[in-house]
Amino acid sequence: MYEALFRDQLTRLKDDGNYRHFAELERHRGDFPAATHHGEGREVTVWCSNDYLGMGQHPKVLAAMHGALDACGAGAGGTRNISGTTHEHVLLEAELADLHGKDAALLFTSGYVSNWAALGTLGARIPGLVILSDALNHASMIEGIRHSEAQRIIWKHNDLEDLERHLAALPLEQPKLIAFESVYSMDGDIAPIAEICDLAERYNAMTYLDEVHAVGLYGPRGGGVAEREGLMHRIDVIQGTLGKAYGVMGGYIAASAATCDFIRSFASGFIFTTALPPAVAAGARAAVAHLKTSTAERKAQRAAVAQVRAALDRIGIPHLQNPSHIIPVMVGCPQKCRYISDRLLQEHGIYIQPINYPTVPRGTERLRITPSPVHDAAQIAHLTEALEALWTECQLARRPMAAQ
Amino acid sequence: MYEALFRDQLTRLKDDGNYRHFAELERHRGDFPAATHHGEGREVTVWCSNDYLGMGQHPKVLAAMHGALDACGAGAGGTRNISGTTHEHVLLEAELADLHGKDAALLFTSGYVSNWAALGTLGARIPGLVILSDALNHASMIEGIRHSEAQRIIWKHNDLEDLERHLAALPLEQPKLIAFESVYSMDGDIAPIAEICDLAERYNAMTYLDEVHAVGLYGPRGGGVAEREGLMHRIDVIQGTLGKAYGVMGGYIAASAATCDFIRSFASGFIFTTALPPAVAAGARAAVAHLKTSTAERKAQRAAVAQVRAALDRIGIPHLQNPSHIIPVMVGCPQKCRYISDRLLQEHGIYIQPINYPTVPRGTERLRITPSPVHDAAQIAHLTEALEALWTECQLARRPMAAQ
Repeated sequence: MYEALFRDQLTRLKDDGNYRHFAELERHRGDFPAATHHGEGREVTVWCSNDYLGMGQHPKVLAAMHGALDACGAGAGGTRNISGTTHEHVLLEAELADLHGKDAALLFTSGYVSNWAALGTLGARIPGLVILSDALNHASMIEGIRHSEAQRIIWKHNDLEDLERHLAALPLEQPKLIAFESVYSMDGDIAPIAEICDLAERYNAMTYLDEVHAVGLYGPRGGGVAEREGLMHRIDVIQGTLGKAYGVMGGYIAASAATCDFIRSFASGFIFTTALPPAVAAGARAAVAHLKTSTAERKAQRAAVAQVRAALDRIGIPHLQNPSHIIPVMVGCPQKCRYISDRLLQEHGIYIQPINYPTVPRGTERLRITPSPVHDAAQIAHLTEALEALWTECQLARRPMAAQ
Repeated sequence: MYEALFRDQLTRLKDDGNYRHFAELERHRGDFPAATHHGEGREVTVWCSNDYLGMGQHPKVLAAMHGALDACGAGAGGTRNISGTTHEHVLLEAELADLHGKDAALLFTSGYVSNWAALGTLGARIPGLVILSDALNHASMIEGIRHSEAQRIIWKHNDLEDLERHLAALPLEQPKLIAFESVYSMDGDIAPIAEICDLAERYNAMTYLDEVHAVGLYGPRGGGVAEREGLMHRIDVIQGTLGKAYGVMGGYIAASAATCDFIRSFASGFIFTTALPPAVAAGARAAVAHLKTSTAERKAQRAAVAQVRAALDRIGIPHLQNPSHIIPVMVGCPQKCRYISDRLLQEHGIYIQPINYPTVPRGTERLRITPSPVHDAAQIAHLTEALEALWTECQLARRPMAAQ
């Protein structure tokens, strides 16, 4: 009876067009964004990776990982408390604390776990805490807040008036935490961080900022949007990932020593899990350190993003205008979105995963394009030509080209 | 006010003797269990690692990781759905499905996440499911069950009568899931798996077995206790880790194709997180494959466990008698447990983390010793002599030596 139930629910997912087919890729170090697509048996160009700067193939990152494997071996061999804290973890936490100008940082096995565990612990252990959560916060934040069983208020996405209305309705002395992101993954829009900090101060709220799509990418040292805007000191908890712009794996928070120690001491998802392998920590640290001083990757990425946007504008392909590095090309139909993705792959050797419901609202299905320093002018031209042909074939609306 | 609250709660933790101090270690590949203890600035022997077979420094594991780093680079660059499924993930899932004689397997970023996400999804999406959970189940299972919001019944640890009593009280047609472990981490005792499967069949329940302290260690191919006892086909979901006996990092489930696809399709903690680095998957696969055919590590581990037990018995140091590889040396007092651990470290260069409340019940504080194939006779003698001296110094009770 259990098997039948599973198959039933999977069939419904397929009928709705929301069943996920994974593309089996094999990246080639040094040639990324090139990869072998095992399903299609052909070489493709990856245009939807979150390895935003190509750091996953940076020689310094790989050298650090090879070195740590040779020196220390593969795994950490235990939880952080029981033999699993290695010198590499301690060094990486210091590097991250410095990145964000905080006393301390705390590593987790993933960005998902860091949000879930940190918000879950703060919400559960600060008596009476109300968490004010942006409506478009990531699943990991939503689950962490739910886990905490704290009172939760959802405010309209990036809407300061709505946030203030909710804050003002609570007693000033009631503990509050405003949880939000800097760069939102699917629309690429950016939160009004300074204004949110103003409200937090006025209404006595802690601030918790997810910078996973921003660390490494924004700010003079890659500290994120809050660094770029000189606001890191006004954020109580900055959360980030080592698996996107830093090219490896893992998540973290940076905060005061007491905050990190508090979460370290009480978060089940931190305590009862095997620590990251030392080689992963070493690779991430090399990436963080490199991007503190090197701006070449960020500049080249911005140039690639601008070139793709300009090329799309020239041919009238609609994409969300936003101030970030994420280019959502809007299709607005799940079947067409999948069809275009399939044709890009099969005919043009271009891999862009279709983004459908429930990741984005119905009617806003899209191709999420992430240009990087490793995409060159020929690849950009190839992408644009392929999209133009498919836009014509699918009879999708174009923007008036002069309006761009 | 938030900082003061954090400091307050930390102070209380310290006053109770339950504040965790992490040992900062640096393992030396090839010399494990030797490591540098950065806090003490000295070389130590690690006796409490979950790298149970020393696979974290096995040449095949390290060669696979170096090879994948060279071939594919560092990170996966995305979630499994958006560019993050690599060839290495697919190969590892096939290797794990084969290990457990199942149709399919599904990788997660950690064992913690695999329990949390799998149990959370099963409990939330099987209408009316009641989860019957062993009283000593791991934190990750408890959190997953809680997350699911399914009805939960806790049965007495390893107590078949209590389990049957609860099962019999539920309607036969009501969906049920029995969640339990094979080897329990802190006591090292082993569940009566066959009898639990009998009850599951009689009362129409799914079985979910956590084998994290058993995979790689038990069974002719390292499939765990269920393999050793010829019971894998009677378990619906087998959950395991790649971070203990396999020496790397990551978690998984093995189950029917529909079960894995169901969890793959609905589990937030699987969907919305960056995939494991290909090099981690490659290293884990090398370890799993090696331990399918090599029994030398398991034999040597058993010999080391027997030697430590015999040595402890000779001098009357009390340890829990259990049928596994875990040797809990019982101290029964948090202060003495920490004191002995500190003295072992500072005077004898032996690192064994004290295990205090809340990880174990108050009054059962212990040193959890995990002998491995890489501990030699001289290290065992050194450990035993150090414990004997400290037992005398602390005036701790010994067992009558003849009774051993």
